[in-house]
Amino acid sequence: MGSSFGQLFRITTWGESHGGGVGVVIDGCPPRIELSEADIQRELNRRRPGQSAIVTPRDEADRCQILSGVFEGRTLGTPISILVMNKDARPEAYADMKSTYRPSHADFTYEAKYGIRNWQGGGRASARETIGRVAAGAVAQKVLARLSPGFEVMAYVTHVYDLAAAIDPALVTREKVEGNAIRCPDEKAVEKMIAAIEEARADGDSLGGVIECVARGVPAGLGEPVFDKLEADLAKAMLSLPASKGFEIGSGFASTRMRGSEHNDAFEIRDGKVGTVTNRSGGVQGGISNGENILFRVAFKPTSTIARDQKTVTASGEETTLAARGRHDPCVLPRAVPIVEAMAALVLCDHALRQKAISDFGLRISDS
Amino acid sequence: MGSSFGQLFRITTWGESHGGGVGVVIDGCPPRIELSEADIQRELNRRRPGQSAIVTPRDEADRCQILSGVFEGRTLGTPISILVMNKDARPEAYADMKSTYRPSHADFTYEAKYGIRNWQGGGRASARETIGRVAAGAVAQKVLARLSPGFEVMAYVTHVYDLAAAIDPALVTREKVEGNAIRCPDEKAVEKMIAAIEEARADGDSLGGVIECVARGVPAGLGEPVFDKLEADLAKAMLSLPASKGFEIGSGFASTRMRGSEHNDAFEIRDGKVGTVTNRSGGVQGGISNGENILFRVAFKPTSTIARDQKTVTASGEETTLAARGRHDPCVLPRAVPIVEAMAALVLCDHALRQKAISDFGLRISDS
Amino acid sequence: MGSSFGQLFRITTWGESHGGGVGVVIDGCPPRIELSEADIQRELNRRRPGQSAIVTPRDEADRCQILSGVFEGRTLGTPISILVMNKDARPEAYADMKSTYRPSHADFTYEAKYGIRNWQGGGRASARETIGRVAAGAVAQKVLARLSPGFEVMAYVTHVYDLAAAIDPALVTREKVEGNAIRCPDEKAVEKMIAAIEEARADGDSLGGVIECVARGVPAGLGEPVFDKLEADLAKAMLSLPASKGFEIGSGFASTRMRGSEHNDAFEIRDGKVGTVTNRSGGVQGGISNGENILFRVAFKPTSTIARDQKTVTASGEETTLAARGRHDPCVLPRAVPIVEAMAALVLCDHALRQKAISDFGLRISDS
Amino acid sequence: MGSSFGQLFRITTWGESHGGGVGVVIDGCPPRIELSEADIQRELNRRRPGQSAIVTPRDEADRCQILSGVFEGRTLGTPISILVMNKDARPEAYADMKSTYRPSHADFTYEAKYGIRNWQGGGRASARETIGRVAAGAVAQKVLARLSPGFEVMAYVTHVYDLAAAIDPALVTREKVEGNAIRCPDEKAVEKMIAAIEEARADGDSLGGVIECVARGVPAGLGEPVFDKLEADLAKAMLSLPASKGFEIGSGFASTRMRGSEHNDAFEIRDGKVGTVTNRSGGVQGGISNGENILFRVAFKPTSTIARDQKTVTASGEETTLAARGRHDPCVLPRAVPIVEAMAALVLCDHALRQKAISDFGLRISDS
Repeated sequence: MGSSFGQLFRITTWGESHGGGVGVVIDGCPPRIELSEADIQRELNRRRPGQSAIVTPRDEADRCQILSGVFEGRTLGTPISILVMNKDARPEAYADMKSTYRPSHADFTYEAKYGIRNWQGGGRASARETIGRVAAGAVAQKVLARLSPGFEVMAYVTHVYDLAAAIDPALVTREKVEGNAIRCPDEKAVEKMIAAIEEARADGDSLGGVIECVARGVPAGLGEPVFDKLEADLAKAMLSLPASKGFEIGSGFASTRMRGSEHNDAFEIRDGKVGTVTNRSGGVQGGISNGENILFRVAFKPTSTIARDQKTVTASGEETTLAARGRHDPCVLPRAVPIVEAMAALVLCDHALRQKAISDFGLRISDS
Repeated sequence: MGSSFGQLFRITTWGESHGGGVGVVIDGCPPRIELSEADIQRELNRRRPGQSAIVTPRDEADRCQILSGVFEGRTLGTPISILVMNKDARPEAYADMKSTYRPSHADFTYEAKYGIRNWQGGGRASARETIGRVAAGAVAQKVLARLSPGFEVMAYVTHVYDLAAAIDPALVTREKVEGNAIRCPDEKAVEKMIAAIEEARADGDSLGGVIECVARGVPAGLGEPVFDKLEADLAKAMLSLPASKGFEIGSGFASTRMRGSEHNDAFEIRDGKVGTVTNRSGGVQGGISNGENILFRVAFKPTSTIARDQKTVTASGEETTLAARGRHDPCVLPRAVPIVEAMAALVLCDHALRQKAISDFGLRISDS
Repeated sequence: MGSSFGQLFRITTWGESHGGGVGVVIDGCPPRIELSEADIQRELNRRRPGQSAIVTPRDEADRCQILSGVFEGRTLGTPISILVMNKDARPEAYADMKSTYRPSHADFTYEAKYGIRNWQGGGRASARETIGRVAAGAVAQKVLARLSPGFEVMAYVTHVYDLAAAIDPALVTREKVEGNAIRCPDEKAVEKMIAAIEEARADGDSLGGVIECVARGVPAGLGEPVFDKLEADLAKAMLSLPASKGFEIGSGFASTRMRGSEHNDAFEIRDGKVGTVTNRSGGVQGGISNGENILFRVAFKPTSTIARDQKTVTASGEETTLAARGRHDPCVLPRAVPIVEAMAALVLCDHALRQKAISDFGLRISDS
Repeated sequence: MGSSFGQLFRITTWGESHGGGVGVVIDGCPPRIELSEADIQRELNRRRPGQSAIVTPRDEADRCQILSGVFEGRTLGTPISILVMNKDARPEAYADMKSTYRPSHADFTYEAKYGIRNWQGGGRASARETIGRVAAGAVAQKVLARLSPGFEVMAYVTHVYDLAAAIDPALVTREKVEGNAIRCPDEKAVEKMIAAIEEARADGDSLGGVIECVARGVPAGLGEPVFDKLEADLAKAMLSLPASKGFEIGSGFASTRMRGSEHNDAFEIRDGKVGTVTNRSGGVQGGISNGENILFRVAFKPTSTIARDQKTVTASGEETTLAARGRHDPCVLPRAVPIVEAMAALVLCDHALRQKAISDFGLRISDS
């Protein structure tokens, strides 16, 4: 279980890294949204390995096919099935994984849970699973653009290892983010980050970091009061990503070192509307968006796959050493940027439809 | 929507701070678990205002009644309805909230979402809503104790404002936690924390902090691979709490400043079973528990209610000043401890039942 | 599990016939709908025992209390908790049920499922559970009236035992239905039905029958293509009622004895809109409402509780005879009428909100 | 929405009749169940058009591919994605459907709901959508065989138009059912049914009928007390099938013409276990299986597609005549048999896993 996400804009992903393919079914996409394979491919290309020198050299074309739910360039309202076939299968590259658990991977826990696992690569725990999320996120962004014309969601790298970028989330542009291999809008930090990643790779090691995400043009009123608070669903979305270890919204952990009088966001009238002077709330109050920018951060650990010998155990319960080998991403952050955006879009799209169901009362429901 | 949580052990909370009462319905509790109102009241008493000098002086008895689902001291398998009537209603105390939005509260966002709100207190956004969570969490803990005999979940305060406690999560005991008003097991830190909170109160201000939670005796195999990863559901649970701003599991945000070779948890054979030498994973790998302690932290902002004048706006769109007044908790951390435990127990209980549904068709996750 | 119903207008009922009480939590009710306890009580009174000479003489006042979700006479958008306390407890009346399974009741199956049951009355299987449904259905009808001004749902008895009424569903009025103890709009049939029921009672026996339900003013477009077809959700709703054994929509089982050329509903233009000349479809085509009247029928078996000795077995596995005794409804049909209406309203309200979430695209989502 | 079914054994179907393909994702299948494409293909072949002279002559190979969730011949516990590509696309054959609504089809209602539809064939409303159900049902049957060794589910035709077969559900065998083109185990009725169908076809007309389904070896205890009663979920499953108009369990509509004293199923001790002397309950009491055979019937209307001119309207609101044409099934009953079985298996498998999650904490519902 657990392969579905969302209440009204509901996605179900499927697929292992090795086997037939990976994909997603989107149920609940509103009808008559313009959609093409190119819309989805654009986002998949941003997630794809092999985009730059600093990410894994595997060349996976990751061509998507829309198998249902779209007709003459527009959504039908029926489930949209998107498929990406697997191509680069070299099961022998993973032969020693059959009997040995890789440290900090999911080999052991899948075995403990299911008593079986696809040991040819990461299986269902592979980052390849996120293809379905990115594809669905591309669709969610198209829906959000229709629901809220000024909407945009943008993620970017703020930290790699101990290197911090200087960024004003209110001013970040997609051009700045996409203009370099790190997807960090602070040009000065980029060069150091690249150097650090290259050094880690040469050393057979890996680095983590932080991704920040800002969503602009989100209307006030999205999110539900108790369990399905907007930040709760965002937190779930982000902690469901491979390698993520933490989430914070607005002031986050830093809020714990502020006093209430410093932290509270005073209200003001801005452009004739209610706004807040500061945005320590991160655009959400009481679980519901307040019309300010949604702002959150996600911590990603250093990749578990490293090119070094590691102490571990075998499936039969003997201690052993896992020899260094294999292709690896020394730092997943740049490729994780479109994935974070996709998950944010999925959460916001779902909540926008949920709010649409109960708002605007009095207008006819059947004026399609 | 959004007032339900869990797939198989599913709770639905209801109630505003002012009005008839608050409560919870638990659907999916296994049958024949011993359960009494006293089991629930014990946890509610830990959450209750007025326990010590440093928390809000409101005296709410918060007496629970079990209205269904229990017969002759044992659960029936049918929904358990638990009710706590509201008592301490003084709507006039909140009269200015009718037309004025309190900074960093949910007044404005509820109005934006629904076009109506119960302005007599926090309404649905009040921390009083967590009574239902704590009551349900008490039941979940009883179920978990049956499913996994060594199970225990324990939360405690590690930080208040800029004061950090020194704690070894493997050694914390409930006696240490409950032995002081802060619920912090580091005696040396407690005195300073109390002083800081008292000072903030005298100053009409408030403080936040960090709560850590450890769950011991959780069998390997709980959690689902993709969206319903154990840490994802824990993150959602914690970010759904009032005033929470961040979540991290295991190494959390600190992981971003480590290299993969430092961060990976080497496997070893311990007591004849697979274990990890370190626990940077926080007991979860690939979204699934690995048998080590589950360990996570939650950031709570300083309480929004402060006894100071604040800049804000009225419902009719005019800027104004909200005068200082009212009873307030200068620091919610001690009372949030049982709430964090309750939410953790709800997540773990739900995942334990989900795993029980598919596990091993013969082998079981535990023998109770 | 299984005590919740609906996706967006979602209800959770709880309670046994003996114990604290019964109730319902409605999550997802749109805000700002006028609602009072009187609105709900009116429907509960129609369901209540003791309304006429032909139903069970138990006098249960069934007074409802709204504990949350309503403020100053309007819904808040938050969960609406409705409670009816139990009053008429005489557990000794049921003492022999402790060890003996009543034929065609749920005593044995609850024991098989849970290994425990509340033997003081029907427990969760009691028809008293439907109080929560009727209360929620009253709220659903208020929402539907706002969403679709001409909406009305009306059920009525068409058959008692072998007695059939002559009714034109297009012309039935609530006055006709409520004008007699059977809730059958064919005055000529009523007298015979009452006589048959009285005779069955005198004979210690019981009778079943058929209830038909018509929903008018349902806009075209409600219902989902595949599993959540409108008739599928109606069928589930109706078969979830105690004592129901069958469901049919439109032409129903009679359709099997027609040819396609006789059965197809030809389209026509009526009052400038698309309509059908006949309504064998029962207002639903491909799972989606077509704007014609929704029309369906539900079969109810004769009540299992009879005042006759019956052959059965004990919990310890011995064959025995259950002695005749106890209060019973010789025919549940008249009291089931408001329950059928309530369930129909719940299904339609849920689907109306689901359709509202995806229709009217282009209008703003946040104009609450 | 509405393309998913089941709580724990959860399927999501997708696909239109014309376009890329159709398929299903199964989430929640237990691990280590032996499964091959041949297991699924066997059932798909029973559903396929072109099996005999009396069904539609379209030759659709309907070859299934398993794209995920199975490894080395066993299920992984991860989502199983099954794909059947579309082949036989001749959109020009449907050109007049672009602007004309076929009577008693879903053309008009899809247009009303979505404002768009795939007019090349039935789109999502095509019976081709049931391929995913049958594929998933084949998997569910394998799981049920593991959970309850004696389990089997069998459907068969009991009525075609006004022709009734004489069948004892307790004695029906698969050989008898599969031994003829009607899938009716009463050999004497088969010949007449075939003649009636051939006559209808020659006349450009279509026939409906009734399918009965029996499930044997279902343990007592499956089904949930209130909304998710076993018969409620079966009713939903069956009414979600194209062309179905009615459902009844056990005595069904005939129960309304019996007295309680005739209808009640007396308990007895049989082979040392609790059983019922009669089975008017259809194997379910209070929504929960009692260990007797589950027995229900489904009414299917005559196929809407007929080879005759029909009165209808155009999308632009003009009355017109739809000319006779096209390939059609004069009677869907024989092909619907495996679909009914599949849906029954899906319901039972889901409830078996739900019961496994709570049952007995030690005792299990079956020992596999």
